[in-house]
Amino acid sequence: MARIVMKFGGTSVADLDRIRNVAARVKREVTAGNEVAVVVSAMSGVTNQLVKYCQDLSPLHDAREYDAVVATGEQVTSGLMAIALQEIGVEARSWQGWQIRLKTDGAHGKARIADIDSDELIRRMQTGQVAVVAGFQGIGPDNRVTTLGRGGSDTSAVALAAAIKADRCDIYTDVDGVYTTDPRIVPRARKLQRIAYEEMLELASVGAKVLQTRSVELAMKQRVRVQVLSSFDAADGGDLPGTLVVDEDEIVEKEMVAGIAYSRDEAKITVRHVPDRPGIAAAIFGPLSEASVNVDMIVQNISADGLTDMTFTIGRTDLARTHAILAQHQGDIGYREILADPNVAKISVVGVGMRSHAGVANTMFKALASRGINIQVISTSEIKVSVLIDADSTELAVRALHTAYGLDA
Amino acid sequence: MARIVMKFGGTSVADLDRIRNVAARVKREVTAGNEVAVVVSAMSGVTNQLVKYCQDLSPLHDAREYDAVVATGEQVTSGLMAIALQEIGVEARSWQGWQIRLKTDGAHGKARIADIDSDELIRRMQTGQVAVVAGFQGIGPDNRVTTLGRGGSDTSAVALAAAIKADRCDIYTDVDGVYTTDPRIVPRARKLQRIAYEEMLELASVGAKVLQTRSVELAMKQRVRVQVLSSFDAADGGDLPGTLVVDEDEIVEKEMVAGIAYSRDEAKITVRHVPDRPGIAAAIFGPLSEASVNVDMIVQNISADGLTDMTFTIGRTDLARTHAILAQHQGDIGYREILADPNVAKISVVGVGMRSHAGVANTMFKALASRGINIQVISTSEIKVSVLIDADSTELAVRALHTAYGLDA
Repeated sequence: MARIVMKFGGTSVADLDRIRNVAARVKREVTAGNEVAVVVSAMSGVTNQLVKYCQDLSPLHDAREYDAVVATGEQVTSGLMAIALQEIGVEARSWQGWQIRLKTDGAHGKARIADIDSDELIRRMQTGQVAVVAGFQGIGPDNRVTTLGRGGSDTSAVALAAAIKADRCDIYTDVDGVYTTDPRIVPRARKLQRIAYEEMLELASVGAKVLQTRSVELAMKQRVRVQVLSSFDAADGGDLPGTLVVDEDEIVEKEMVAGIAYSRDEAKITVRHVPDRPGIAAAIFGPLSEASVNVDMIVQNISADGLTDMTFTIGRTDLARTHAILAQHQGDIGYREILADPNVAKISVVGVGMRSHAGVANTMFKALASRGINIQVISTSEIKVSVLIDADSTELAVRALHTAYGLDA
Repeated sequence: MARIVMKFGGTSVADLDRIRNVAARVKREVTAGNEVAVVVSAMSGVTNQLVKYCQDLSPLHDAREYDAVVATGEQVTSGLMAIALQEIGVEARSWQGWQIRLKTDGAHGKARIADIDSDELIRRMQTGQVAVVAGFQGIGPDNRVTTLGRGGSDTSAVALAAAIKADRCDIYTDVDGVYTTDPRIVPRARKLQRIAYEEMLELASVGAKVLQTRSVELAMKQRVRVQVLSSFDAADGGDLPGTLVVDEDEIVEKEMVAGIAYSRDEAKITVRHVPDRPGIAAAIFGPLSEASVNVDMIVQNISADGLTDMTFTIGRTDLARTHAILAQHQGDIGYREILADPNVAKISVVGVGMRSHAGVANTMFKALASRGINIQVISTSEIKVSVLIDADSTELAVRALHTAYGLDA
């Protein structure tokens, strides 16, 4: 017998038939003798509609009212799921954030979870009642509904799992696990049985968006064993095996590289011919930071004649804004010109095994060179090596690296 | 300066444009120096969709979960209305039933209001903040969301008006007041400036569904002055005058008859040749009552040869069920046959002035006789005379009575 949290996203509960499917899946776990809490998202499309209402009424709407409006999507699903479970003989009840008292801070629209009163939930789960919890929402210090930001239901599920000391937090998604890379690009990509929290974080933040980043951070901090698995049944009606996101120590055979991620949402900016003097980086990146433009990779060329070039990447959607900000500060920075290239991709190899293996970066550089792919920028961390390349070479690069690191199935 | 409650139904908040219109109307009251609480329904169509979800998942769904699901419609509107008000410079915040603590009993799906904590609301209204209250919902003794039954937002508004001691409760609807009869049948129907609670109750229960019956009962009990008025603006941008529902004492010139109502939702049953013995009425109506079939008018013929006929009316939708129940009890009752006629209409003349005027019923009988309309059943109360006639004569009868009682404009 285990205590588990099962989380279902919007596509898994998109209509009544899918809600019935989820209920049947929950019943299997209950019948197997497990104590189950279910966390649900809004039916797909609902949240977008509600967000649009708020934005159309007022671009600068009150975040507290926004929360009251958008949190209703999960409330609906939680009630419907409880009804669907009862209909097939499973005892169940719905819980809103304010009812379990999933307490958050007061940052409406992107609140962080402070505490969950789990005693009553646990008591009821021990009597066999399934707790159906509305994801994405909590209650703030002002006794008003808060929401956790888009994708926040993953975080709800992990926080709930930590609070009720669940043995496992199963996140059902429209993929059936975490792969060594995107299977649409590399058909021979393998599903990972296990992945370390840190690897999952790096893969998520570079574009393999299976789980909300915050939920992985929370799972890592609270040591919650998260399983990513498909919301679709296997041919035999059972669950398809998924991927366990666990502590590094639970992964005995550490591969050097766990996976290859890519992102085509970047743009490259080069600020040409800036004076190579102390404070020049602050002059460039200070105004960007104030405008909440996220700068990722940064490279400074060696100096020539007291001038240098500064190259960095930003989110592609920030390109126009970045241009404008830099133009505004041309006087302070003293650059000659700005080059912008939106046609770039960031490719990253990720793995906790890197810590104990040498030559990871070199394998990458050789593999890319052998395909004639030019590296524009490099950045490294303890468990990741990322390069910026021409976007047109994305697929070629990912395939080459997948093979080079021995990840092909 | 006055303290008022303004209630807007689903068609008045059907889309963002209408929500903006309502906000502008609320602003007028605020600008005029009034303290305002707004009660909103769900956007039209939303509640029906949510109810359908619950019914499709389980015909016998848990009423507590039903309440959690359907109450979201009003929650959405309350948040959007607060945003719309803020956008035009009116300070406002939304309140859910569990936040104001609109406490109800535990009868989920048709809960009755027990108490409203109004101190905080009043305090904020006195500082100029508009309270936008989600109608139709409260919180039960089990700390779960309850709903008040279809049309319950009218009752929310009246209860709130009583709790905050409002000077007036304005109910905005898609009609612009209460008429002497249905203007679609009698073009010369007049809008009443004032109507007594009792009259409104009789008119509502016989088919002139402007206000939910319970809301009128509550208004009468709590002496809340209710105004029914159109949610559409007058040509000059102001409010069209509506109808005030008030205490009888406030109506100085009492007309003999305030209005003519009709209902085509009835069916007539005659149980033929039952033994005329004590207990026969109980034998017929006991089983119907147990099955929650509402019986309205009842007539027993005079006896002949120890046998009699019993005629009564029921809601037309209960016809098949009533037939089945009576057939089941033929042995106990001992009737020979059942006649059923779904093609009937009930016409009622209503007025508190009847108490002091003689001849009201006779005027009715003469007017119907002069048009050749046969009366099948008669029933009377202190302020109402109702007759059952052939449904095909409905319009003719209503017009004749409207003229006979001097109600034509």
